[in-house]
Amino acid sequence: MGLRIVVVGIAGVGKSTVVSKSVSSIDGASLAVFGTEMFEAAKKLRWVKHRDEMRKLPVEKQKRLQKVAATKISRSRGRVVFIDTHLFIRTPEGFWPGLPFVVIQALKPTHLVLVEAPAEDIRSRRKNDATRYRDDITVEEVQAELTLARTFLSAASLVSGAPMSFIQNLEGKPDEAAEAMQRLVGSARV
Amino acid sequence: MGLRIVVVGIAGVGKSTVVSKSVSSIDGASLAVFGTEMFEAAKKLRWVKHRDEMRKLPVEKQKRLQKVAATKISRSRGRVVFIDTHLFIRTPEGFWPGLPFVVIQALKPTHLVLVEAPAEDIRSRRKNDATRYRDDITVEEVQAELTLARTFLSAASLVSGAPMSFIQNLEGKPDEAAEAMQRLVGSARV
Amino acid sequence: MGLRIVVVGIAGVGKSTVVSKSVSSIDGASLAVFGTEMFEAAKKLRWVKHRDEMRKLPVEKQKRLQKVAATKISRSRGRVVFIDTHLFIRTPEGFWPGLPFVVIQALKPTHLVLVEAPAEDIRSRRKNDATRYRDDITVEEVQAELTLARTFLSAASLVSGAPMSFIQNLEGKPDEAAEAMQRLVGSARV
Repeated sequence: MGLRIVVVGIAGVGKSTVVSKSVSSIDGASLAVFGTEMFEAAKKLRWVKHRDEMRKLPVEKQKRLQKVAATKISRSRGRVVFIDTHLFIRTPEGFWPGLPFVVIQALKPTHLVLVEAPAEDIRSRRKNDATRYRDDITVEEVQAELTLARTFLSAASLVSGAPMSFIQNLEGKPDEAAEAMQRLVGSARV
Repeated sequence: MGLRIVVVGIAGVGKSTVVSKSVSSIDGASLAVFGTEMFEAAKKLRWVKHRDEMRKLPVEKQKRLQKVAATKISRSRGRVVFIDTHLFIRTPEGFWPGLPFVVIQALKPTHLVLVEAPAEDIRSRRKNDATRYRDDITVEEVQAELTLARTFLSAASLVSGAPMSFIQNLEGKPDEAAEAMQRLVGSARV
Repeated sequence: MGLRIVVVGIAGVGKSTVVSKSVSSIDGASLAVFGTEMFEAAKKLRWVKHRDEMRKLPVEKQKRLQKVAATKISRSRGRVVFIDTHLFIRTPEGFWPGLPFVVIQALKPTHLVLVEAPAEDIRSRRKNDATRYRDDITVEEVQAELTLARTFLSAASLVSGAPMSFIQNLEGKPDEAAEAMQRLVGSARV
């Protein structure tokens, strides 16, 4: 059985860069983007044709897609599968948990990793990328999201029994973050 | 199926005011007070006659009442049911969780809302209402309770799969808090 | 049925002292050290001969030992059983949860207690006991561990339905911490 490493991080933390660097530097590593797996499942079921339609699906259907995607990923035979997903998604209804209990049970992660960065850096990145991040946000709000992420991850670790790590992605140093990921994978007792 | 919105908040945050304003301003909304439902169930079982007797019941009986109340509320046919309850209760034995795993599973909340207020305001309200709040408490202790509430709510969100929101109830502005609740209900995809 | 009081605390908090003082001062109290129970179970299964071999066991075997130990402790007929364990263990793979969901379900704790101390005191104790604590650590890192401990304990409380307490173990005052534990046991409604 291989490793299933769930990688999460709040918006603007640079998660995708860290994940893609990790995948390309670790032998036998592959990537599963949770949202993409959900979309593929939805297309197969003929619930949607385009990705934009995903967010309009009723909650019950979204939950079913989460489970289908999680089960599919859990059956992957990859030696090291990185799962790029969200711990929570900010919506007008509140923060939706991206890794609720039923999804964790289906996904069976072996490791949980939270990519973090200084709140001030995150705020700047969001500000400078206005096309991707619409809302203006204060450093305090970013700090609250970082705290929330650690809280959610702890609960996910307790529920899944998987160990959790915090990896710092400092400005201009994504390679160091990817190296931390390599060390983690290297130390894993499979 | 309707909405089951669990509303919690530490003592002195003004939760009841926000809930009652929300119920009266939202079409088809009703209120279930969790403690009252537990008391009604206990009376039916002839375990108690008066509400004072509730806290003397052994833990096992209290847990059974929690489950009975949660199941009953989950079967409500209301379009929008607000459930007024406690995230935790401070006792000499420690903080009792008001929404433990088994209760969450029975209640099946669709939304979790935490009413919050500045720690200083909460402390003053508790101080000025000495009949209701017996203990003198520092701002730091209030702050620790606020943090604990967010932590518990995050775990409840992860376990239930329901989204969670934080609504600020600022001094003298409960209508704004109730409006935030209306926006939340208005945006809910049932 | 007796009490099963899980006592946890980060390294350097003085947990063992508080637990042993509590056991000797409370009538009918006994102690179960979780790691020792796991080792005993491993010896019986002939997986290890010496304690040092425990950490080399593959994760799946460790998880089985956790469950066996938890089940055994849950069947203890002691009036008050203190369970000395870890909320999380810092490893190169991340923080391993010491009380994951499956262990909590098997252990069925009646109370959860977190022993705490000021971050500065913990840092000094770790520094002055270099044989036991290898890594040098900053006050901020200790503070982060203390926060993590409260977060994990809250999730454990929500999942188990058991109340949780925070007991302060101030420098030179372990007797006060043990007295707090006595008051907790004295107030428990069995």
